[in-house]
Amino acid sequence: MAKPASFPARTTTAEVELGTLLQPKFGPDGMIPCIAADHATGEVLMFAFMNAESLAHTIRTGKAAFWSRSRGKLWIKGEESGNELRVAELRVDCDQDVILLRVSNSGPGACHNGYRSCFYRRLVPGADPADPTTLRLEFADSRAFDPAQVYGKK
Amino acid sequence: MAKPASFPARTTTAEVELGTLLQPKFGPDGMIPCIAADHATGEVLMFAFMNAESLAHTIRTGKAAFWSRSRGKLWIKGEESGNELRVAELRVDCDQDVILLRVSNSGPGACHNGYRSCFYRRLVPGADPADPTTLRLEFADSRAFDPAQVYGKK
Repeated sequence: MAKPASFPARTTTAEVELGTLLQPKFGPDGMIPCIAADHATGEVLMFAFMNAESLAHTIRTGKAAFWSRSRGKLWIKGEESGNELRVAELRVDCDQDVILLRVSNSGPGACHNGYRSCFYRRLVPGADPADPTTLRLEFADSRAFDPAQVYGKK
Repeated sequence: MAKPASFPARTTTAEVELGTLLQPKFGPDGMIPCIAADHATGEVLMFAFMNAESLAHTIRTGKAAFWSRSRGKLWIKGEESGNELRVAELRVDCDQDVILLRVSNSGPGACHNGYRSCFYRRLVPGADPADPTTLRLEFADSRAFDPAQVYGKK
């Protein structure tokens, strides 16, 4: 197993926000939020958390890796489905506490439910928010693959 | 002040992931991550957290509102800068624990540092990840406005 990655300590706000040294901020739980978006279309594909090990792994291999909080282990996206996310570009936000990966997907979809993106449902336009228990979603996309075939029976 | 919004309790995994009822999952701290992306171009503009009140406010007004954890209050994006994010579409991810807003920005930029997007820096391509303290960023965008003029002197 690789030695744990050690990113630089945070310095000043000016350095963090307008400097050129990568100094990511991990939360109290060791996690940093990560957005993956399609490099060609801009479409947001998925969201997950990384720890320092996942971020270092992603930078080293050029393939998106996250931290599975439920399984307590490094989660290399696509290791089961084959739908790897190849990193074309890694960005940080202004205060370096969020990562944005611009990726190309080697498979048809990034979502374990068979969709290109995890964000396949939208709030029905014009819904009345006065009673939040009545808010409805509609499907904005069709399945790109059959998850039962890719992930096996659940 | 409005009555706190009450979203429906979570039901089954199948209902959450493939159903049509909005049943967002807020974390132990009451927060749900939220990505704002440009409706026209797909560009990811910013990331912040919402609590139930912010989400209800966003749905009700059609303008992005978050929760400022540092200030402990509702944060209506643009209330100081005028750069409101108007919500064209609200999406949820598969397990309904992340919100995606597709927005149009009424101003030139979403970032308090004067950029269109908070993600204005990228990791220098080909950086050697063996020593994470050497990883460098480069600016991928130019300023869209002067933050000193918009937010006043800091």
